Amino acid sequence: MAKEKVERNEKMEAIISLTKRRGFIYQGSEIYGGLAGTWDYGPLGVMLKKNIENMWWKIFVEEREDMYGVDAAILMNPQAWVASGHVGGFSDPLVECTKCKKRFRADHLRDTFLNENPAILHDEPSGTVEVLNRDFSSFDIKCSNCGNSLRNAQVRQFNMMFQTRVGANEDAGSTTYLRPETAGGMFVNYKNVMDSFHPKLPFGLAQIGKAFRNEIAVRDFIFRVRELEQMEVEYFVDPSEWEKYFEEFRLRMWSFIDAIGLSREHVHELEVAETDRAHYSRRTIDFEFDYPFGRKELYGLAYRGDFDLKSHQEGSKADLTYFDEDSKARFLPHVIEPSLGVGRTMLAILSDAYTEDEMGGEKRVYLKFAPGIAPIRVAVFPLLKNKPELVAKGREVYENLRKIFGSKVMFDDNGNIGKRYRRQDEIGTPYCVTIDFDTLGENPELLDTVTLRDRDSGTQKRVPLSQLASHIGSKT
Amino acid sequence: MAKEKVERNEKMEAIISLTKRRGFIYQGSEIYGGLAGTWDYGPLGVMLKKNIENMWWKIFVEEREDMYGVDAAILMNPQAWVASGHVGGFSDPLVECTKCKKRFRADHLRDTFLNENPAILHDEPSGTVEVLNRDFSSFDIKCSNCGNSLRNAQVRQFNMMFQTRVGANEDAGSTTYLRPETAGGMFVNYKNVMDSFHPKLPFGLAQIGKAFRNEIAVRDFIFRVRELEQMEVEYFVDPSEWEKYFEEFRLRMWSFIDAIGLSREHVHELEVAETDRAHYSRRTIDFEFDYPFGRKELYGLAYRGDFDLKSHQEGSKADLTYFDEDSKARFLPHVIEPSLGVGRTMLAILSDAYTEDEMGGEKRVYLKFAPGIAPIRVAVFPLLKNKPELVAKGREVYENLRKIFGSKVMFDDNGNIGKRYRRQDEIGTPYCVTIDFDTLGENPELLDTVTLRDRDSGTQKRVPLSQLASHIGSKT
Repeated sequence: MAKEKVERNEKMEAIISLTKRRGFIYQGSEIYGGLAGTWDYGPLGVMLKKNIENMWWKIFVEEREDMYGVDAAILMNPQAWVASGHVGGFSDPLVECTKCKKRFRADHLRDTFLNENPAILHDEPSGTVEVLNRDFSSFDIKCSNCGNSLRNAQVRQFNMMFQTRVGANEDAGSTTYLRPETAGGMFVNYKNVMDSFHPKLPFGLAQIGKAFRNEIAVRDFIFRVRELEQMEVEYFVDPSEWEKYFEEFRLRMWSFIDAIGLSREHVHELEVAETDRAHYSRRTIDFEFDYPFGRKELYGLAYRGDFDLKSHQEGSKADLTYFDEDSKARFLPHVIEPSLGVGRTMLAILSDAYTEDEMGGEKRVYLKFAPGIAPIRVAVFPLLKNKPELVAKGREVYENLRKIFGSKVMFDDNGNIGKRYRRQDEIGTPYCVTIDFDTLGENPELLDTVTLRDRDSGTQKRVPLSQLASHIGSKT
Repeated sequence: MAKEKVERNEKMEAIISLTKRRGFIYQGSEIYGGLAGTWDYGPLGVMLKKNIENMWWKIFVEEREDMYGVDAAILMNPQAWVASGHVGGFSDPLVECTKCKKRFRADHLRDTFLNENPAILHDEPSGTVEVLNRDFSSFDIKCSNCGNSLRNAQVRQFNMMFQTRVGANEDAGSTTYLRPETAGGMFVNYKNVMDSFHPKLPFGLAQIGKAFRNEIAVRDFIFRVRELEQMEVEYFVDPSEWEKYFEEFRLRMWSFIDAIGLSREHVHELEVAETDRAHYSRRTIDFEFDYPFGRKELYGLAYRGDFDLKSHQEGSKADLTYFDEDSKARFLPHVIEPSLGVGRTMLAILSDAYTEDEMGGEKRVYLKFAPGIAPIRVAVFPLLKNKPELVAKGREVYENLRKIFGSKVMFDDNGNIGKRYRRQDEIGTPYCVTIDFDTLGENPELLDTVTLRDRDSGTQKRVPLSQLASHIGSKT
């Protein structure tokens, strides 16, 4: 157990180090000592992120004809968050050490304590402040910073929405929030889309965008952060048909999981028990993933009933009902919500792709990205940098591949070929192409052929230039 | 003059109304009465925005080999904004009416007053609080809300950065800002990118992302807003070469302007005079556009010297110098900054594209989008909805076009053909394809041909299905 934990942390450390070194993910504001819970994407991270988002948009929006994209503002009228319940209840239990004044997630401290003290039998989940306060006063839970007993500490709810003031007037009415989820931006636009497009049920709104949560404790690299990017659909259905579409989106989530190359055996559906579900939900599935630090949430799929439209109808006084032409009935549609995070997707992809092996007697590290998601799909190498004829031919091959694969083609003439392979392995490039003297016809039989090297096996084969693109484009 | 003003406003009103009605742009949080200065993009707005951003990314990033994408967090360490000068000086002059307590941009009120009172000779720009306070006390500028004289009102600087607190601790150290510009997110990552990729000068960082400005007065639809999206490059050069690369980016901005289909005669370069430039800039060009409400800023191109890297080097204590291998010199690179806004680009495109004419004796409104930027490139119509053979053939044509143009293909079998044309005209679709009985061979000579209708001229021609895609794909 202890050993496994060390290995897990080592893998996370290796991933964090590689993604920084090679330009995927940097600590936010790093030269200023960072800002906890924020991360910046570097050049390769931007490309990987784009590939993830484009794949999601393709599978959840473009492949369907019943999906409407929206891109709502992050700053919203605060009444929307009153209606949705976030002002009242979007909070985590917080406990402050009476001695060192450091603050913690009370439920996390308690759960860790119970895990480390299995003799204490305890069935109740740590959801409510009442349960937590009772447990903190009866167990001897210690501050994880200074060791002080938290027996006399008070657990309270801490609202996780970031507040700010809008406009030059400094009255209370100008206070609003950074949206804590993209969903709200879709629900407030449901009526606008209805008025513009008159869609029939079922139909969905889709959005990729940022959300902000003032987490008490950020942790696990890009897993629990304060600024995140969500890819969400709110799918509106006739209440009698929710089970059918819930199933449809469950399968679509698996299609996406396959498309980005995650191993199915590392993804697990967890049927959320009735006691753990939101009161309005009759079914929720958490998609969990085996991260290096354990099995944790990756995605969520929830049947939300008419909770959202009902709340916003009451809050805004706008009529959000739908009129069914066939049945002549007027009702609030129900909602299926598949919710995916870009950061957690990227972390899962990196965790799955990170591989260490041995090649040619040397330790090797590579990222086993699915070709369809890899930032760089193919790298082109002239064998020698100081031979203008090789470099010229290499540039020609490079330019031709760019016409097909765009900016996913990289040119590199720096260092020996072995080192160049290793550099591409580390950033997960599935293919490398080498132009040598045979390409130029030194061996006439090999004229206009190149070496195509496969990342995972390290094997090389000779391929005619005329077939190169189809080889590289074949796998997804 | 007065007449022109009315016409201008009418055009803006028409654009605002059309973009709302057809699902391009909605007021933010509309069902809650809105939130001033925020706008939400609807389905067609999302598609137009994507096309603009993809075009920018292609021209400014993908077509070059010296450009590195970054995607930095919106929440940054506040010290970065101290170093950049934003905490001290990112402010606008504010004046509050002593009677009704409404707050205004003092410089705007003063400039309007001077425009309306040309007899008052006044040369000085309204830049400083000192000048403004002197003018408010000596002129009789009135509150534009209640008419009260502002002679005794005090002008002061109002910082436009949105503040928020990060973390559960409520001390002053936890206060930070929503970034007021994307540039800061690039400068703090300059060293990270240098360490990961070791690029040689010149090279650039590129980013598309949100920025937030707590404007005292929002106005002119999506022109002056509180939440905006920027497309920016910070291009690092050897100081001796700045003029060459400034010119290169000036031309590239024109390439972009051409690519998105803006009329060159509506875009004007304004050489910013030395007195109006930032002190560190030796050249700045404002690209202005003839919006319906007048000639105003569209883009900016600035030579910023080493101001940014120097400030962040001093603020962060990180070494941001560059070592030139050839000359063995160590220095801070200088910066060329082409800065473009997504919203202003969209507003310029809409302003240019909005056209009223007469067709078939009826008034017509259409958006003359360049085909490469239009949300929908082609719409497919079966002539009659109640003829299954026409609908089936229509679906077949639609599916085939989707293989080439993706989600930019729309299917519509609702209403008569004339109405369908008008609907597509209003959303700027360059081509409509109609499947009729001749397509199915009623006239054997016309078997497998369709009617292709051109948006701008309204002319129709008969095209074989085998040539349809090349007709539609030919114009950009």
